[in-house]
Amino acid sequence: MERIPILRMGKLLLVTIQVDMHDRLAMTLQDDLTSRIVKDSAKGVLIDISSLDVVDSFIGRMIGDTAAMARVLDAETVVVGMQPSVAITLVELGLALPGVRTALNVEKGMALLTGTEPL
Amino acid sequence: MERIPILRMGKLLLVTIQVDMHDRLAMTLQDDLTSRIVKDSAKGVLIDISSLDVVDSFIGRMIGDTAAMARVLDAETVVVGMQPSVAITLVELGLALPGVRTALNVEKGMALLTGTEPL
Repeated sequence: MERIPILRMGKLLLVTIQVDMHDRLAMTLQDDLTSRIVKDSAKGVLIDISSLDVVDSFIGRMIGDTAAMARVLDAETVVVGMQPSVAITLVELGLALPGVRTALNVEKGMALLTGTEPL
Repeated sequence: MERIPILRMGKLLLVTIQVDMHDRLAMTLQDDLTSRIVKDSAKGVLIDISSLDVVDSFIGRMIGDTAAMARVLDAETVVVGMQPSVAITLVELGLALPGVRTALNVEKGMALLTGTEPL
C-alpha cells in the first residue's frame, strides 16, 4: 500500500499508523492530512500508534512535524495508544513531543478533543 | 508489524486494513477481534478497507468469515470505504459478502450501527 488512510469521524480525523514509515510515505501522509484538514474543516487529528512497538527519531520527528502542521491549520493533534516502550524510547531520543497531547486510546483521545465524556 | 490494531469507540470496534493480508495475519486478526468483541462487549465491528485497491478471493473470504464470527458473538459487521474497483472484483469473484452490511465511510458505518445520525 502506498498511502495511509485517513478516516473522518465528525470533526475529527483518525490516522492509524501500522506500517513502517519511510520518507515518501511520511510526506504523502502529511500532504493528505493537511489537505483533509482543510477540506473537511477538521478540528482535531487522532494519530493511533498502538501497533508500533518501536519508534526511531524519524517517526518521532514525523509525528511532531505533522502535529505542528495541523496546529497551524487550527486542528489539534492527539497521539493515542502509545506503548510504554515507545514512550521510553521517545524521551531517550530527546523527542518528548512538545505541544502534542496524548491519550491512552482512541476513545479517550476523542473525548479530549471534543470536550465530552468517552462514548 | 505483525498484527492489525483494533480500536474501540464506545460499543464499536474499528479495524483498518492497510497491509497485504496473509494467512497468519488474518488468523491473528480473527483471534484478536473475537477476543475483543467478548472483552469489550462490542455490539458492532467496522472494517475499513479504503486503502485496499485490489482484493483477492483470500481477503474476500477473510472478511466474510470475520463477519460471520462477529455475528455469532452478537456483533454486527459493517465494511466501510470500499473502492468501486474492489466492489467489481468481489462480485466477479462470486464473493458478494452475503450478510455483511457496507457503508461509504466510517461515519456512515457508525451511524448505521448505532442507529443515530452521522456525527
